[in-house]
Amino acid sequence: MRRTENDENSLIRRIRQGLAAHSPARLPGLRLGIGDDAALWNPTPGCEIVLTCDWFLEGTHFRRSVHPADSVGWKCLARALSDIAAMGGRPRCFLLSLALPQSHTGKWLDSFLTGLHRASRKFKCIPAGGDTTLSKKILISVTAVGEVTARTATRRCGARSGDLVCVSGQLGDAQLGLERVTRDKSPARRKDQALERHLYPTPRMELARQLAKSGLVTSMMDLSDGLSIDLRRLCGASGVGAAIEESKLPLAKGFRQQNILEEKRLWAALHGGDDYELLFTVPRKNLKRLPPEIAGVPLTVIGEIQRGSKIFLVKPGGRRIALEMAGWDPFRRTTKRP
Amino acid sequence: MRRTENDENSLIRRIRQGLAAHSPARLPGLRLGIGDDAALWNPTPGCEIVLTCDWFLEGTHFRRSVHPADSVGWKCLARALSDIAAMGGRPRCFLLSLALPQSHTGKWLDSFLTGLHRASRKFKCIPAGGDTTLSKKILISVTAVGEVTARTATRRCGARSGDLVCVSGQLGDAQLGLERVTRDKSPARRKDQALERHLYPTPRMELARQLAKSGLVTSMMDLSDGLSIDLRRLCGASGVGAAIEESKLPLAKGFRQQNILEEKRLWAALHGGDDYELLFTVPRKNLKRLPPEIAGVPLTVIGEIQRGSKIFLVKPGGRRIALEMAGWDPFRRTTKRP
Repeated sequence: MRRTENDENSLIRRIRQGLAAHSPARLPGLRLGIGDDAALWNPTPGCEIVLTCDWFLEGTHFRRSVHPADSVGWKCLARALSDIAAMGGRPRCFLLSLALPQSHTGKWLDSFLTGLHRASRKFKCIPAGGDTTLSKKILISVTAVGEVTARTATRRCGARSGDLVCVSGQLGDAQLGLERVTRDKSPARRKDQALERHLYPTPRMELARQLAKSGLVTSMMDLSDGLSIDLRRLCGASGVGAAIEESKLPLAKGFRQQNILEEKRLWAALHGGDDYELLFTVPRKNLKRLPPEIAGVPLTVIGEIQRGSKIFLVKPGGRRIALEMAGWDPFRRTTKRP
Repeated sequence: MRRTENDENSLIRRIRQGLAAHSPARLPGLRLGIGDDAALWNPTPGCEIVLTCDWFLEGTHFRRSVHPADSVGWKCLARALSDIAAMGGRPRCFLLSLALPQSHTGKWLDSFLTGLHRASRKFKCIPAGGDTTLSKKILISVTAVGEVTARTATRRCGARSGDLVCVSGQLGDAQLGLERVTRDKSPARRKDQALERHLYPTPRMELARQLAKSGLVTSMMDLSDGLSIDLRRLCGASGVGAAIEESKLPLAKGFRQQNILEEKRLWAALHGGDDYELLFTVPRKNLKRLPPEIAGVPLTVIGEIQRGSKIFLVKPGGRRIALEMAGWDPFRRTTKRP
C-alpha cells in the first residue's frame, strides 16, 4: 500500500522539517531528537534538570479566529520557558504534544511551526520530540526541559516577613493586548507594545538568571495568571502575607494614540495574565545592591512581605483593602472587569 | 475573598494528595515536585536522560462512557513508560497535563488518580509536576522522564539485512479487549486477559532493560500502533525491508469461553494497537544466546530483515504478499477490520 500524504509519519516529517534549523547536532547534549520512541539527552554535569509543562488550548488560551498561527507557535513555547526562567534556569530542549483538525495540517501548521521555530532559536531551546494526533480543536501541550547550576534555583517558598516585593517590567500590557485582539477585526495591522506582548511574549530568561545568580532574592516566580493570583501563590508557598502599594505599580502604557482609563490600566496590572514578568522578593538589606534595571528590564519595588496570610492593596490615601483574586483561573471564571 | 473549592490551586492540592504516597523524598534525585513553577531533578551521573510525551485524549484514545476512570489513569502513564522501556531506560518521574470538564473534578478525578497512582508505584515513576485546566473533553498529555546508562540505549535504526525480527508476548490481545469494551455494556464484570491488557497494559520495563543490557539486539521499539505500522517505522529508520511469517505470529488467545475467528485473531496480531509488547531485531549469530523468555515474557522470532524497503507477509503456503498498514493512525482512519 502506498502511504497517503496525511498519515502520522508524514506529519512528523513535516514538523521535523519545519523545525529543521535545529538539528540534534546544534545542542551538544542532545544525542537523539524527533523520530524514535524517545529522545536521548546528556545533561551538563553539576546541573539540576528543570522540568515543566504547559497547556495551550484553543478556546481556553487562544482563539483560532483571532490569534495568528505563528503567535500560537511562539507563545506555546515562550510561556513554558517562562517557568524555566522563574527557577533561574537555562532552557535546553522541549517536547511538543500537538493535536490538530485535518484542515489545519497544511498552511496553518506551517505558520505555527514558523513561530515555534523562531521562539526555539531565540531562546536556544531545541525540539527533542513530541506526539501528534487528530482532534476537532487545536490542542497543544509543551514540556520544556532546562538546567540550573545545582542548588541555585529560585523557588517560591523563600519569602520572609519584611522582604520587599518586586516586579520586572510593566504589568498589564498583555491584558490590554488581549482586549484589543478580541475587539479589533484585524489587530495585526496596527502594531503596538500591548498587542506585541500579548501575541509574542518574551520570557525574562537573562534577567531571571542574573537575579538567581546574584543571591539577592529570597523567592521568585513568573507572572502568568495575574499578580493577584500569582502573589497569593508565592505567599502561600512561603507561609506569609503581603501589602502591595497601588501607587507603585508599573502600569502598562497602553495603546499608542489611544487613552486608556486609569481604572482599566490598574485592573490589568493587578489581574491581567500573560505578562510573563518576574515577581520576586528581596530582603531590605539587599535593596542597595539591586540595580534599577537588569538586562534592559526595569525593576520596581511594589510592596512588602508581611506576617500572616492576607494580601492587601494599599490605596493612594493609605487605606488598606483585601486584594481579591480576579486574574486568570479557568476553574473560577468569576472575573469582573472594568 | 474566600477561595472557592473549585479553583485551580485547590485542584492542584487534590492531585498532589491523590498521588501523595510518592512525596518528592521517595525519589532520591527529585529535589522539588508539584507546586512550584517547575520541578527540579538531579539525574544519575553517567546516565543519559530519556524523554517522551504521549497524548491520551477522550474520543481518540478512550471513551468516557466505556473506559473506567482508573484505567484512563493507569494507561496514560503506562503507554508513555513503554517508550522509555523501548529505549532500554528506567522511568524516573513524569509530568501530567490534565484538562477536565468541571463535572469530572470530583469522583472521576479521584478514580483517575487511583489508577495513575497505582501505575506510578508499580513502575517506580513519580509525579514531578504538571498543568491543569478546564475543557469540555478530557485531555491528557503525559511526559515521562527516564534514564539509561550512557551509550546503551536501543534505537530503531540499527536493524541490518539478515537480522531476525522478534516480538515479546502475544500480539492482538489489546485489540480484542477493545472490541469487547465497545460491544459489552458492562465489560468490567467479566475479566479476561484481553480486556485486562486493553485497560491496564503493562510496559515491558524489565524485559527491555535486560535486552538492552544483553547487547544481543540491533534495534528495538514498542508496539503501540500495531505491528504493520510499527515494523514499517523500524524498517524506515534502519533503511531496510522485512518479511514476516504469518505462521510464526504469537496470536492472542482471545476471550475465555469464547471462540474467536482465526481471521480476527490474525488481524488483531498484525494491526491491533495498544499491546505495548517489544519489537526488536537480533543478528542471526546471536540467536543461540537469546533465551526463549526473559522476565517471564516469551520471545518469538517472527521473520527476517531484508534488503530494500518493502514489508512482506509470508502466508502459510509460502506466498508473499505486501503487508499493508492498517493499524492505528488517526491521520488515515482507513482501517478495515474483519
